[in-house]
Amino acid sequence: MKIIRTISDMQEAVQTLRRDGKRIGFVPTMGYLHAGHLSLVHLARQQSDRVVVSIFVNPTQFGPNEDLEAYPRDFARDEALCRDADVDYIFYPSAAEMYPPGAGVYVNEDHLSTKLCGASRPGHFRGVLTVVTKLFHIVQPDVAVFGEKDAQQLRLIHQMVDDLNVPVTILPGPIVREADGLALSSRNVYLSETERREALCLRKALDQAEQMHASGERSARSVITAMEKILNTTPSARVDYLSIVHWNDLSPAEQLEGDILIALAVYIGRTRLIDNTRLKTTDAHAS
Amino acid sequence: MKIIRTISDMQEAVQTLRRDGKRIGFVPTMGYLHAGHLSLVHLARQQSDRVVVSIFVNPTQFGPNEDLEAYPRDFARDEALCRDADVDYIFYPSAAEMYPPGAGVYVNEDHLSTKLCGASRPGHFRGVLTVVTKLFHIVQPDVAVFGEKDAQQLRLIHQMVDDLNVPVTILPGPIVREADGLALSSRNVYLSETERREALCLRKALDQAEQMHASGERSARSVITAMEKILNTTPSARVDYLSIVHWNDLSPAEQLEGDILIALAVYIGRTRLIDNTRLKTTDAHAS
Repeated sequence: MKIIRTISDMQEAVQTLRRDGKRIGFVPTMGYLHAGHLSLVHLARQQSDRVVVSIFVNPTQFGPNEDLEAYPRDFARDEALCRDADVDYIFYPSAAEMYPPGAGVYVNEDHLSTKLCGASRPGHFRGVLTVVTKLFHIVQPDVAVFGEKDAQQLRLIHQMVDDLNVPVTILPGPIVREADGLALSSRNVYLSETERREALCLRKALDQAEQMHASGERSARSVITAMEKILNTTPSARVDYLSIVHWNDLSPAEQLEGDILIALAVYIGRTRLIDNTRLKTTDAHAS
Repeated sequence: MKIIRTISDMQEAVQTLRRDGKRIGFVPTMGYLHAGHLSLVHLARQQSDRVVVSIFVNPTQFGPNEDLEAYPRDFARDEALCRDADVDYIFYPSAAEMYPPGAGVYVNEDHLSTKLCGASRPGHFRGVLTVVTKLFHIVQPDVAVFGEKDAQQLRLIHQMVDDLNVPVTILPGPIVREADGLALSSRNVYLSETERREALCLRKALDQAEQMHASGERSARSVITAMEKILNTTPSARVDYLSIVHWNDLSPAEQLEGDILIALAVYIGRTRLIDNTRLKTTDAHAS
């Protein structure tokens, strides 16, 4: 496994791989890897001859009052995990390497990116789309894997690949959870013992929604009310958003029909956690 | 020579070329080709095994009151010229192919793009950067050639390639002029006989600036005054802008020292023409 720190070295390495006809799989991460990331590496591995993992805590996707400084980092641990997962290259650039002084060109979208997480994190998806474009140009992968936990990010990456004709196949990776249901996140390390227990409210609210849907409930309003009841009775929880939207345009859905995303962001104490579920319903006429 | 009209066919063709180790040169154009375009094709030819020319009048770089509909088009003539110039592929997509309904991701820059032409054509460079990014992803060239006549566009393309780590080498092509000095432009066809004669005022003003610079004049104010005199005594001319700026950040220069761009946009009747010159001066201490 090679650790590469400069853009030019990475571009040179992939140029050689491409010349040799190797298929490149790519997993972009912010490090502090967990089993969720490793499942993405595994998916990339299945589709590629060589796997590149990038580890970069991207400053441009953090807001001024967010946790850029506090975001957990442990490169030695990440390196060991990547080695065990049979990763071929870690791309591990500095912020100065990725954003030299004077950089000003960016990638953005003005509609999907303003909903859900975009409403409380203005500029977040501009940062994401810009850094992913840069990483795609640096790593030049055939296939790139993104986790479904960041549902809106995944939706926007699909949109970007379509709109900008990016020659990369996007592969979604299912959410990986702890035994009790908490979605894996590098930010879970912020939680106190009590908060860790109460953080289960996100999954419990989604369970409730899935059960109601399975029993035939189609009213988004009823599902949201039931989910809110669970979240509002959790002492450390404060809802940032709880939305039932159409997957395609992320607009609010009144009925659980078609391709639906139920997404929520909840502060557990001072830690903002997200989780979601996709429900695909064929309408009554078709069934 | 192959004419390709769909994105997927073009991406497939270049994938085969790349697999065969061919070096791809690319010249993006809006068609209605002239000797200026053909000089860019010649430059691309020298650096590549295969040359791709795109012909696409990009709607997103035209403002609502600009000449999108009137912009001259003659594909049969363009095709013949490309064949003569030994072009290997013409990429000739429709607007619907390039911008399907629902597209929303774009590439932009907020500083360089608001100066010079950007001040009178808001959104123009967002359209340019977005379509060039798309074309780069579709054609995947090793080298792409852009004319120096569109100086600000060239500056922004360099910026984009740097900031987004685009794996393409940008090659600038010198301005090609008629025998009397008028810079070649597809828009010259709009000019009446009188206007064609008076359109020489752009080049005459730049000649004046170059002569003053050669004689040791360093005051931008003095040079602008002399250029304005030429333009203001031309009956059909109306100056859109006349600027002396630093090449690097396109900020106004007071002295003709360092790497300087003198750029102007002038309406000749209803036709907006641009022209420019670059002056590189080592400072007095070094000479």
